Amino acid sequence: MGDAPAVVRPAREIGSARLEAFSDGVLAVIITIMVLGLRPPSGDSLAALRTLIPGLLIYVLSFTFIAIYWNNHHHLLRATRRISGGVMWANLHLLFWLSLVPVVTAWVGAHDQSRWPAVTYGAIGFMAGIAYFILTQTIRAANPDTHINDLLGRDVKGWVSMGLYALGLALAFIEPLLAYGAYTLVAIMWFIPDRRLSRSSDGEG
Amino acid sequence: MGDAPAVVRPAREIGSARLEAFSDGVLAVIITIMVLGLRPPSGDSLAALRTLIPGLLIYVLSFTFIAIYWNNHHHLLRATRRISGGVMWANLHLLFWLSLVPVVTAWVGAHDQSRWPAVTYGAIGFMAGIAYFILTQTIRAANPDTHINDLLGRDVKGWVSMGLYALGLALAFIEPLLAYGAYTLVAIMWFIPDRRLSRSSDGEG
Amino acid sequence: MGDAPAVVRPAREIGSARLEAFSDGVLAVIITIMVLGLRPPSGDSLAALRTLIPGLLIYVLSFTFIAIYWNNHHHLLRATRRISGGVMWANLHLLFWLSLVPVVTAWVGAHDQSRWPAVTYGAIGFMAGIAYFILTQTIRAANPDTHINDLLGRDVKGWVSMGLYALGLALAFIEPLLAYGAYTLVAIMWFIPDRRLSRSSDGEG
Amino acid sequence: MGDAPAVVRPAREIGSARLEAFSDGVLAVIITIMVLGLRPPSGDSLAALRTLIPGLLIYVLSFTFIAIYWNNHHHLLRATRRISGGVMWANLHLLFWLSLVPVVTAWVGAHDQSRWPAVTYGAIGFMAGIAYFILTQTIRAANPDTHINDLLGRDVKGWVSMGLYALGLALAFIEPLLAYGAYTLVAIMWFIPDRRLSRSSDGEG
Repeated sequence: MGDAPAVVRPAREIGSARLEAFSDGVLAVIITIMVLGLRPPSGDSLAALRTLIPGLLIYVLSFTFIAIYWNNHHHLLRATRRISGGVMWANLHLLFWLSLVPVVTAWVGAHDQSRWPAVTYGAIGFMAGIAYFILTQTIRAANPDTHINDLLGRDVKGWVSMGLYALGLALAFIEPLLAYGAYTLVAIMWFIPDRRLSRSSDGEG
Repeated sequence: MGDAPAVVRPAREIGSARLEAFSDGVLAVIITIMVLGLRPPSGDSLAALRTLIPGLLIYVLSFTFIAIYWNNHHHLLRATRRISGGVMWANLHLLFWLSLVPVVTAWVGAHDQSRWPAVTYGAIGFMAGIAYFILTQTIRAANPDTHINDLLGRDVKGWVSMGLYALGLALAFIEPLLAYGAYTLVAIMWFIPDRRLSRSSDGEG
Repeated sequence: MGDAPAVVRPAREIGSARLEAFSDGVLAVIITIMVLGLRPPSGDSLAALRTLIPGLLIYVLSFTFIAIYWNNHHHLLRATRRISGGVMWANLHLLFWLSLVPVVTAWVGAHDQSRWPAVTYGAIGFMAGIAYFILTQTIRAANPDTHINDLLGRDVKGWVSMGLYALGLALAFIEPLLAYGAYTLVAIMWFIPDRRLSRSSDGEG
Repeated sequence: MGDAPAVVRPAREIGSARLEAFSDGVLAVIITIMVLGLRPPSGDSLAALRTLIPGLLIYVLSFTFIAIYWNNHHHLLRATRRISGGVMWANLHLLFWLSLVPVVTAWVGAHDQSRWPAVTYGAIGFMAGIAYFILTQTIRAANPDTHINDLLGRDVKGWVSMGLYALGLALAFIEPLLAYGAYTLVAIMWFIPDRRLSRSSDGEG
C-alpha cells in the first residue's frame, strides 16, 4: 500500500479489494439507513408499537435482501482478478438499484396492502438481478483466464430469483401479500443454498 | 490483496477481515445515525435545550451499548480463523438486532417515562444478546481446532447481560426508570471488566 | 500495519491508502444518503409514484456524478506516492463540495422546473471541478518525481466539464432543462472515455 | 490478515489499524450526515437559497472541525503501537462528543443569532478537546517506550483550542457572533500549522 516504486505504473487494474471496500461501504450504509424508514411509533402504547409491525416485516425482508447481495458480491469479487472500467460501471449500476431499496421499503412499510408499492418492490428486485447478471458478465469478459465454474451455479439461482420477482410483480396486481410471499421465497432460496455451499467448500480443504 | 495467482482458488473461507470490515461499517453507521434521533431543540432557549436531556441520556446509553458490541465483536473475530456460511448469517442476525437500536433510542427519547419503549429497549438488548450467543456458537462449530478459552469468560458476562435485560424488561412494567437502571448496569459491567482484561493481557507480553 | 518498530518514525507521509479509505467512506455515505432526498410517495397510487420521476432522474444524475468522482479520485490516488498536508486539505475541500450534492439534489427534485436549483446544481459541479483541479496540482507539487502523464489526459476532460457546468449554469437562466442537458453531457463524457481508457490499459499488460 | 496460525494468539493488542478504520468510518459518517441538517430551501427562489447561508457557514465550520480531528487523530494513531482497553474507551469517548456536532450544527443553523446554540457549540468543542487530551494520555500510558515528542507540540495547540472554546462560550453570552469568531480562530490555527508541520517533515526525508 503506497509503497509503489518511484515510477508509478499505469493504473492497469483498479484492484478488486478497493472496489469491494467501496461496495461494502455503500452496502453497509444502505442496510443501515433503511432503518430510518422505520419511524419510531407516534404514541407510547403497545398499540402504537403494533403499527410498526408491517414496516418491521418488510424491513426484515429488505435487510435480508441486501445481506444476500453483500454475500454474493463478496464471493463474486473474491473470484475476480481484473477489474475493467466496464466492471466498475456494472458494479455502480448494481449499487444504484440496491440504493433504491430503502425508499421502496419505507413506501411499502407505509402502504403494505397496496398494489403499487408491491409492484415497485418487485421491479427493483428484478432490476437488481439484471444488474448483478450484467456484473457477472463483465467480470467474465475481463477475466477470460480464470476458473469461474463456481459462479455458474449461482447464475441458476439468479435466474430463479428474477423469475420469482417477475411473478411477484404480476401477483401484486391480484393481491400484494402474494407478491411479498414470492419475494420472501427468493430470500429463503438464497439463504439455504449459500449455507450448504460454504459448508461443502469448507470440507474441501 | 488481489495478487492471487491466475487460477483462482475456490472461496474456501470468506475471510474474517472482510466480515469484520463490513460489520465495522454497519456499526459505525448505526452509532452515528443514532444521533439523527436527537432532533435539534425547537426553540433557542436554555429551556429548549433541557428538553433534550432524556434523549441525550438514552443516546449515551445506546452509544455505549453499540460500542460494547463493537469491542466484543472485534475481540471475537480476531480469535476466529474460519468463517462459514452459518457465521455469515449469524453475524448478519446480530447486526439486524443492533440496527434496531437507533429506532428504539429515538422512541425512548420521545417517551422516556413510558412503559412500552422501556420494554422494547430491553427486548432488543435481550435479542442482541441471544444473537451474539448464536454467533459465538457458530464460530465455535466452524473453528473446532482453535483455543477459545478467552471467549468462554466473556460468555458469563453475556448471560448476566441477558438476565439484566430480562429483569429490566420486567421492571419496566412497574417503573420505566428501574428498567433503564438495569440496562445501565449492563453497560457498566462490560465497561469495567474489558478494561481489566486488556490490561492484564498487555502484561502477558 | 501496527508492526512498526519500537522507535516510531515521524509521520513523514500520511499514506495514500488511508486518505483513499477515508475519502471512499465519505463518498459511500454521500452516494447513499442522497437517496434520503427521494421521499417515498405520499400516496400508494401509480400517480403518486409518478411524482417521484423528476427526483429519480436527478438522483440518477447525481449518483453518476459522485460515481465519476469516486472513479477519478481512485485513479488519481493510485498514481500518488506522497501525501502532504496540502493534499489532505485539498482532498477535504473536494469532499466538502461533493458533500453538498445530496442537498442540492433534494432541492432540484422538489423544484425541477425552477431556475435557482438548476443554477446551484451547476455551481456545485463547477466548484467540485475547481477543487479536483486544485487537488491534482497539490498532488503534483508533492510528487515532483513521478510520471503523471496519464493524469494530464484527464485534465482536458476536467476543463471541458467545468466549461459545461458554466454553460449549464448560464442556460439555467433561460430554461432549466437545458442546464440539466449540459450536466448530463458531462456525465456521458466521463462515462465513455473512462471505459475506453481502462480497456486500452488492460491491453498494455 | 486472517493468515494467523492454527493456534490463535490471545488478542494482546487490538491493533491501531482496526481502531483507526472504525474511527474513520464514524468520522466519515459524522461529516456526511451533518449535511442532512442543511435542509433544501423551502422555495425555489434566490431569496430561499439565501436563507441557507447561515446554515452553510456553520456547516463549513463544523466540516473543518471534524476534518481537523480526523487529521490529528490520524497522526496520533500512526504514532501509536499498543492499544489498551483504556485507549479503546478514550477513543469512543472522543467519538461520542464529535457525534454531537451534527445536532448542534443543525441547531445553530436554525438559530444563528441566539445565545444557547452558540454556548452549546463551544461546550461540545471544549469537551471534544478534553476527550482528545484524555486519549493522548491513555495512549502515552499504554506506549511508555515510544518517542512521542511530535505529539507534545500538538498538545500546546490543543490547550489553546480549549482556551478559545471557553472564551467563545463566554463571549456567546454577550454576542453570539463573537463566539463563532473564536471558534473560527481555532479552525484557522489548526489549518495553518498542520500544513507547515507536514511540509517540514516532508523535507526531512
